[in-house]
Amino acid sequence: MTAIRITDVTLRDGMHAVRHQFTLEDARDIAKALDTTGVDIVEASHGDGLGGSSIQYGFAKEDEEAYLRAVCESAPNTKVAALLLPGIGTVDDMKRAIDCGIRVIRIATHSTEADISEEHMQEARKLGLEVVGFLMLSHMTPTSVLVEEAKKMASYGAHCVYIVDSAGAMLMDEVTQKVSALRDALPPDVEVGFHAHNNLGVSVANSIAAVRAGAVRIDASLAGLGAGAGNTPLEVLVAACAKLGIDTGVDLYRAMDAAQDVVRPRMSRPVIPDRDSLTLGYAGVYSSFLLHAERAAERFGVDARDILVELGKRRVVGGQEDMIVDVAVQLAQNRVRQTKEVEST
Amino acid sequence: MTAIRITDVTLRDGMHAVRHQFTLEDARDIAKALDTTGVDIVEASHGDGLGGSSIQYGFAKEDEEAYLRAVCESAPNTKVAALLLPGIGTVDDMKRAIDCGIRVIRIATHSTEADISEEHMQEARKLGLEVVGFLMLSHMTPTSVLVEEAKKMASYGAHCVYIVDSAGAMLMDEVTQKVSALRDALPPDVEVGFHAHNNLGVSVANSIAAVRAGAVRIDASLAGLGAGAGNTPLEVLVAACAKLGIDTGVDLYRAMDAAQDVVRPRMSRPVIPDRDSLTLGYAGVYSSFLLHAERAAERFGVDARDILVELGKRRVVGGQEDMIVDVAVQLAQNRVRQTKEVEST
Repeated sequence: MTAIRITDVTLRDGMHAVRHQFTLEDARDIAKALDTTGVDIVEASHGDGLGGSSIQYGFAKEDEEAYLRAVCESAPNTKVAALLLPGIGTVDDMKRAIDCGIRVIRIATHSTEADISEEHMQEARKLGLEVVGFLMLSHMTPTSVLVEEAKKMASYGAHCVYIVDSAGAMLMDEVTQKVSALRDALPPDVEVGFHAHNNLGVSVANSIAAVRAGAVRIDASLAGLGAGAGNTPLEVLVAACAKLGIDTGVDLYRAMDAAQDVVRPRMSRPVIPDRDSLTLGYAGVYSSFLLHAERAAERFGVDARDILVELGKRRVVGGQEDMIVDVAVQLAQNRVRQTKEVEST
Repeated sequence: MTAIRITDVTLRDGMHAVRHQFTLEDARDIAKALDTTGVDIVEASHGDGLGGSSIQYGFAKEDEEAYLRAVCESAPNTKVAALLLPGIGTVDDMKRAIDCGIRVIRIATHSTEADISEEHMQEARKLGLEVVGFLMLSHMTPTSVLVEEAKKMASYGAHCVYIVDSAGAMLMDEVTQKVSALRDALPPDVEVGFHAHNNLGVSVANSIAAVRAGAVRIDASLAGLGAGAGNTPLEVLVAACAKLGIDTGVDLYRAMDAAQDVVRPRMSRPVIPDRDSLTLGYAGVYSSFLLHAERAAERFGVDARDILVELGKRRVVGGQEDMIVDVAVQLAQNRVRQTKEVEST
């Protein structure tokens, strides 16, 4: 029987879905419910990780340390993790998180920039943490490059490296290919993980594909709470795995109850593949581009979706938002040219 | 490039999700929106097909013929289908539906009872209709039996036979196996179709698996509107197919807009794998058992989910609701016996 371990991200990726506004009571109630389910790790932090509560990424309702202490106290039987993006979170943030009780650090970089995780990973190992590497927006990066980046993280001390489908842009064959390649290339004692988003409606199927390709750690969240169309819904994944004979160690009914009774009443909007999140998954663009694309679309009289699809082809990443106007202008010019061609024939 | 044709079921299976209460204006608006998308067929009827509007299956808001005429008028570029379950709908109902403008009849039986479709299929062929056979609750029936049932439908004149996952209980491997077996066994001029429900969160992935196994007709609905956790969301399926090079003939943006602007505002509740619908998919039991199981659970002090899972193992079908109390009593007795055993040790 295949056995996997689940990391729940309701209190981290799920923070995006509530604009980082969970109260300490919310965090405690969700952590308590998760602690009964048997998930291996509960991740808690601002959606953008330690140090993310800021004017740039959005202020969280409560102080970072207060959240972490509340979660560690409320989930005494479960390891607690924090996310850290080098450039946003620091080694000092990590040390403070350890004082609050975390035992796992998940260090995330763009999928071509593993080298910026070196210092944080080495420090984390010295501090005795379990270290997980996160290759974000993996859909943009060719498999051969992902393999090299994953090897770097392994050499820095990662116990596990994740393929992260941040934009929910992957389908099953791509997951199989990328996870298999990492599994083949990494040392046997370095695990492979997979983190999905549901923008193309296939988070559960992608997670199953990842398990079959050799991933032994899978991310999920109660009711799928997470950025965009949300993450893999924990309770749905557990049910599907149970039918397939994949041992998750998670109690299905408790996960169902936690999703239904603890998380759904706290959701301000349904987390589904709606027009916006589906467009982002289809285009393969991270959600920070959406609002800017909509503004440019209105200004230049083009469809925001065409802008996002073109941005996806250009493989834009955070910080390249100025490219949006370029694309909008070009689409508008193309349209004018096409109209003239039609008129002149 | 693989090419498939989509049948939209928003105005039929989606009727379950609104308790058959769409107004004629709702039906017209949805049909108009669908007519712009390029779907091959729009199915319209009571959720339980022609003649379904009744005290037993729930009265629809409007008259059956009025719905059908409204949809046929509003979708002049699209074939309109009606569903018919022998035993509920009659040949006369079918003739009246033809007068309203339908060109396709989809005749549904339990997946071991194809023989009750013979008369309706032969009449439908004489009347010049396109005929589709629907093998409901296919997850309950071994592949070898499904193949024989499908062959019967083909011999009665079906142009296409569907594997129908009525309870949303299948995962991808089972879909692949069952669709492949039908494709191998049926004459080449009889098409294979697939109808999914999203109770295990894999409707899109199951539909893609079906296409790869040889299905050329796939059901979907705008925003996934349908019974239980809903059907395959049309706009999400189209986006996934576009990325995979599967030609659906459907305009992605128009499908997205129809889902977001026309259907979502008419949804009274989110159609998702929540506790109830997930439990039904996990147990493999049709939704008509849910309320009865909850009542019996309360009466006998057991978990409704345990009742449903046990009913799934016994492969219950509609009409066997009296088995619910038997199962509840047995579960309660087992618990008493286990408690005594613990006390006596």
